[in-house]
Amino acid sequence: MESSQSQYKANYGVEVEAKVANPRSSVRSSDFLLRLLAVVTTLVAAIIIGVARETKMVPFSLLSNVPPSYIPLTAKSHYSSAFVFFTVSNAIACAYAALSLLLLIAKRARGNAITLATTIISLDVIMVGLLFSGNGAAAAIGLLGYQGNSHANWQKVCNVFGTYCHQVAASIGVSLLGSLLFVLLVLLAVLNLHKTNTS
Amino acid sequence: MESSQSQYKANYGVEVEAKVANPRSSVRSSDFLLRLLAVVTTLVAAIIIGVARETKMVPFSLLSNVPPSYIPLTAKSHYSSAFVFFTVSNAIACAYAALSLLLLIAKRARGNAITLATTIISLDVIMVGLLFSGNGAAAAIGLLGYQGNSHANWQKVCNVFGTYCHQVAASIGVSLLGSLLFVLLVLLAVLNLHKTNTS
Repeated sequence: MESSQSQYKANYGVEVEAKVANPRSSVRSSDFLLRLLAVVTTLVAAIIIGVARETKMVPFSLLSNVPPSYIPLTAKSHYSSAFVFFTVSNAIACAYAALSLLLLIAKRARGNAITLATTIISLDVIMVGLLFSGNGAAAAIGLLGYQGNSHANWQKVCNVFGTYCHQVAASIGVSLLGSLLFVLLVLLAVLNLHKTNTS
Repeated sequence: MESSQSQYKANYGVEVEAKVANPRSSVRSSDFLLRLLAVVTTLVAAIIIGVARETKMVPFSLLSNVPPSYIPLTAKSHYSSAFVFFTVSNAIACAYAALSLLLLIAKRARGNAITLATTIISLDVIMVGLLFSGNGAAAAIGLLGYQGNSHANWQKVCNVFGTYCHQVAASIGVSLLGSLLFVLLVLLAVLNLHKTNTS
């Protein structure tokens, strides 16, 4: 392998990476892939809920004996503080995932960087908390929109704004996937540290 | 120290633990203390929201020209699926924290147990996700109760059920403390693994 690499370098003037089975290298590759997927999913989730809106003509009458007139009502995410928090949490996680990916790539080029890796695992844990609280908040309000709550006299709104509700549900689903990716990143890092300790 | 321990053992027939400054021992003590606090906080949070209820006499009239009659209305947590999820997530985290504490104490008596520790850190991360999603859901519905949402025509209810809302807020606060304890547990474990790797 070494001689073929030297041969390749001599022929083409570039360094090639050894393709032998290396657990640490495969862990790093999984880490990069998961982090990249986390960037994409949190970005998509933030965009979907950010652009989600629907306008419907809703009947409205001041007096019961007068035929109702129709007024346009719009549903959008910044009307709900839970959805705003959800969007912001996904945006923060996306920016962080992109930054951590760049830092890891930059550090990888310079060699082993266990302190950076530990800092990044710690921040990954914070992101798990942030993203799951955003998901919980958005899911609670989303479910209220679908079902309503008769005890508090909060009527469901998804019978009127069906498309908007589907967009919100899709966004929560994608964000949940992103959150699980952060959980996987932490688990992978912990298992990797465990392997290093036991080997 | 060693000789005084042997002397002590010879004199009293029991083993004494060395009281010298040991970073791994202090990490373990912090872990036990944080885990114990996590048991207490999640238990208290689940109990507070579980028993929280308030009954108020609310005016009610079928016809506008008839004076209103008063009917009793009760607010309790199992009327909201978000609060039920919050209670269940705290109960699961409490049971898990207690079980992990017992397992760690049992394993400690038998010596080093890095595989158990790694499993427990991994489950701690899952608890962070579970607890924060519960907190997010409960906080979103709690905030809706305090402020309402004029766009969805969801009226605030905390002007009527003030005591109940305070109990819910207290429960969310205590649960948030419990969730942060789980975050601390994971951070402490990661830093500990990091120290072991670099030393």
